Amino acid sequence: MRIVVDAMGSDNAPSPEVEGAVKASLKLDVEVILVGDEALLRPALDTYPKRGNVRIVHASQAITMEDNPVMAVRKKKDASVLVGLRLVKNGEADAMISAGNTGAVHVASRTIVGPIRGVARSAIATILPTLGAPVLLLDMGANVDCAARHLIDFAEMGMVYAERVLGVERPRVALLNIGAEVLKGNEVAKAVHAKLTDAEHINFIGNIEPKRLYEGRADVVVCDGFVGNVFLKTSEGAAWVVSRLVARELKATLISMLGALLSRGAFKRIRRIRDPNEHPGAPLLGVKGVVIITHGGCNSKGVANAIKGAHRAVETNLIGHIRSGIEELRSERGVAQEAKT
Amino acid sequence: MRIVVDAMGSDNAPSPEVEGAVKASLKLDVEVILVGDEALLRPALDTYPKRGNVRIVHASQAITMEDNPVMAVRKKKDASVLVGLRLVKNGEADAMISAGNTGAVHVASRTIVGPIRGVARSAIATILPTLGAPVLLLDMGANVDCAARHLIDFAEMGMVYAERVLGVERPRVALLNIGAEVLKGNEVAKAVHAKLTDAEHINFIGNIEPKRLYEGRADVVVCDGFVGNVFLKTSEGAAWVVSRLVARELKATLISMLGALLSRGAFKRIRRIRDPNEHPGAPLLGVKGVVIITHGGCNSKGVANAIKGAHRAVETNLIGHIRSGIEELRSERGVAQEAKT
Repeated sequence: MRIVVDAMGSDNAPSPEVEGAVKASLKLDVEVILVGDEALLRPALDTYPKRGNVRIVHASQAITMEDNPVMAVRKKKDASVLVGLRLVKNGEADAMISAGNTGAVHVASRTIVGPIRGVARSAIATILPTLGAPVLLLDMGANVDCAARHLIDFAEMGMVYAERVLGVERPRVALLNIGAEVLKGNEVAKAVHAKLTDAEHINFIGNIEPKRLYEGRADVVVCDGFVGNVFLKTSEGAAWVVSRLVARELKATLISMLGALLSRGAFKRIRRIRDPNEHPGAPLLGVKGVVIITHGGCNSKGVANAIKGAHRAVETNLIGHIRSGIEELRSERGVAQEAKT
Repeated sequence: MRIVVDAMGSDNAPSPEVEGAVKASLKLDVEVILVGDEALLRPALDTYPKRGNVRIVHASQAITMEDNPVMAVRKKKDASVLVGLRLVKNGEADAMISAGNTGAVHVASRTIVGPIRGVARSAIATILPTLGAPVLLLDMGANVDCAARHLIDFAEMGMVYAERVLGVERPRVALLNIGAEVLKGNEVAKAVHAKLTDAEHINFIGNIEPKRLYEGRADVVVCDGFVGNVFLKTSEGAAWVVSRLVARELKATLISMLGALLSRGAFKRIRRIRDPNEHPGAPLLGVKGVVIITHGGCNSKGVANAIKGAHRAVETNLIGHIRSGIEELRSERGVAQEAKT
């Protein structure tokens, strides 16, 4: 399996990307392709004599966090993320990961790899631990401004992902909102609620508040990408501040005791909430190729985990499942609509 | 001091309101006026022989969480929240607290008590603990759909509150967003960023992400009411799940040890993040009377804390400060604009 790493994406690029690629190459049966400025990447890579199968593909440009996504994709034709996606498009690689400008990765993926038929907007899907079963959340940041109908696409893709990849039977779909009542939320949330209630092919259980989400009361939770990203970053921030406050108060000896006890189970799960580097990256659903997003502030562990996530997505045929699942839903929906008329 | 409690507002009304009123009446030098269905309130109150100065004012109707705010305020003329606000308006009470339908409390407050001149939208302001100094956040849920200019009002009110009530010199104002870069966020966030950058009378330090917020990097943070409420409920949910995961893993003996240690400092602050009943309620800024909002799922402790919050707001002349502060800012801004032309 060949996995592209956009080596120019993260805040501290290319160090985390290069080190993460080396780490992953030693653990997984993959060829990792670092895409970026060879003059930077070659010496960085040469500092790791012990490595698996890692090679470099040169790209002369890079898209920054300050770039406007649409303009950057149009003008920076030799940007690392575009070069990497072309490798995926041409079958020279099976997946790409990027910690770069999320909007640009999104636009470039739709432009180069192409959208899955019938999906108007792609969405970043994250799996989050809860007190119950893990929950699949989307969109976590690809689309910061959404119309209600886009969230129906997200619900359908999430449903297919949960059923076919995660093995959840008849997944419970909920809408992230500030109250359980039908009328709660802003204009978009209210419109989505109405549409999801009408959609007979979706097992919609209504609005869900963050605490209920963390109780594990839903399998798939949809929201627009701005709200999703606020949710994710707030969860990380709050979990982080709680950990810090606890650590501050406890004496050093008790901390190590506590650490030893917690490291077995709870602490790992808390870290999954608190530290984005513990996440296996998040797939961009809705495009015809495996594209995994990780966060701009990632370290090498975050990159290695995202490569692992890409590896798993290819192995489980994520894209094939989403494509066929969406096609089936579309035809079912077509039949249902015809029957109604 | 006389404080009205809307006794029909919370999810479990009127029990938490009645018990909370009794608790607060025993601690504070106040007369608490319970407004609601006397047939329910009288027997509930009579179960507390030991109480301070608590009386009942009858209201035959109640606004529910399912009610449309504008319609309910128009039609339910004898709803508890309207009756209570009339007492404030007529000088028969100094403040009101409510755990009811936030939208309805907001609309009713602007209709009955009236808006402060120059403030187009009111905002719910919450003080949150951080690793540094506490931060003032607004809007936490009064306006779920905002235009950019409304957030400028919020920034101004927050600045005045921080300076005059909390004693913060030259408060740092930030915009809650999903990234630090100028171009981050949805359409509203980008427009607000541009407007706040242009506003010379506001010490705007840029976008802030949740983790930085919890580090205490800003004094006043603005956002629209939907995002603010998502932020608040997500913080509570994440802090709650972390506490639960820790508690689950630790053995009972260690828990009590830990509890004893933590109860001194950290645990109190975590509880302030995790449990909304620990909050002293949140004032609705922008109206000409003290209106304190607490959450629908509150218990009697939450109600008592909100009464305490109302007491403090009256004592510190919150409304007077906001009124005169906004007037001064408006005239400064007027002068600045004239100077420019």
